[in-house]
Amino acid sequence: MLTLVIGNKNFSSWSLRPWLLLKHIGEPFREQHIRLYMPDTQQHLLAANPAGKVPVLFHDNLRVHDSLAICEYLNELFPASKLWPDDVAERAEARAVSAEMHSGFLALRGELPFNVTLRTRHQPSPEAAADIRRICDIWQQLRQRHVDGGPWLFGRFSIADAMFAPVACRFVSYGIELPPLAAAYADHVLADAALLEWFDAAETEQAATLA
Amino acid sequence: MLTLVIGNKNFSSWSLRPWLLLKHIGEPFREQHIRLYMPDTQQHLLAANPAGKVPVLFHDNLRVHDSLAICEYLNELFPASKLWPDDVAERAEARAVSAEMHSGFLALRGELPFNVTLRTRHQPSPEAAADIRRICDIWQQLRQRHVDGGPWLFGRFSIADAMFAPVACRFVSYGIELPPLAAAYADHVLADAALLEWFDAAETEQAATLA
Repeated sequence: MLTLVIGNKNFSSWSLRPWLLLKHIGEPFREQHIRLYMPDTQQHLLAANPAGKVPVLFHDNLRVHDSLAICEYLNELFPASKLWPDDVAERAEARAVSAEMHSGFLALRGELPFNVTLRTRHQPSPEAAADIRRICDIWQQLRQRHVDGGPWLFGRFSIADAMFAPVACRFVSYGIELPPLAAAYADHVLADAALLEWFDAAETEQAATLA
Repeated sequence: MLTLVIGNKNFSSWSLRPWLLLKHIGEPFREQHIRLYMPDTQQHLLAANPAGKVPVLFHDNLRVHDSLAICEYLNELFPASKLWPDDVAERAEARAVSAEMHSGFLALRGELPFNVTLRTRHQPSPEAAADIRRICDIWQQLRQRHVDGGPWLFGRFSIADAMFAPVACRFVSYGIELPPLAAAYADHVLADAALLEWFDAAETEQAATLA
């Protein structure tokens, strides 16, 4: 059995990525929740993961403690789900944009934190604006190239989409205007049934927290 | 033909990672250099890579623009080099610590920047000290488990070693004392023939820059 340890659905963009992937695979899995920003959060995080972060995937005796590594592991476990593009060059490119997301865009991540239920207007700093431009460039170039292959970044849904899905949420939360092809991709992501299920859970969780 | 675009060998820890991997594979490749911290650096970086960073790997018409994705691509190109562990669970763990290195340890990276020729003593901040402890924990646990399989993190040399090699350099540059097993692993890394070749080139480059 697979168990995914995640943070609050309203706040944890990194938890969302492998969760979304598992939903697209269609494999049943257990969720285990750690409430973030509480006095005992750090203690629970370290008990689940010596790196002190969510998400963590448990599979029998194996613990995989990083979001991108979880995605790669699921790709190995479920080859029929074809979670990376088939072509070796496209797979390299999908891994490059996924790794770029995984390691970068620190200005965007610091300034526009993931917050599912938030709706505001934010004027990005020059650094965050540069991150937003780069993400839009990635989305637009990939969508242009794969327009005939399907609605996702590489046509078919892939790990790259799971990596960028939380960014589409951020753009809505902070009222960021996008160029047309990037906006169309973000709209497609935000209509995904699994993502909508996450949003609903985030709202319920958040309402319970504030009650 | 493979071409790896890299920054100054004295300063670019990210360039070192796939370079070291290519040396261990034993495949000939061209190096192309972009001098960092110059007035025209940004222009050259953006010409090589829309993400504006080194390293970048070119292979015929393909560009792979992220260090971890380059490592994954090389693993696919050269399966005989067995750049990840054979066992699926160990491979997941190797990817997790590699991705953790790729995306994290920001305090260490900001406070103890990679500088091959530097020798100093630095008292790490609590945040950098926590990063150092976590890295030593990773190294020690993996070395304990793989002591019979060879001298690298997973016994045999893997991408995980390429990812952590620059950290061993940092520890020397800043006079960081390590617990015994971590120190032994760092010593092994620092005696690697390919890494010594990089150090020599870094010293020559740096001497030329300062002349």
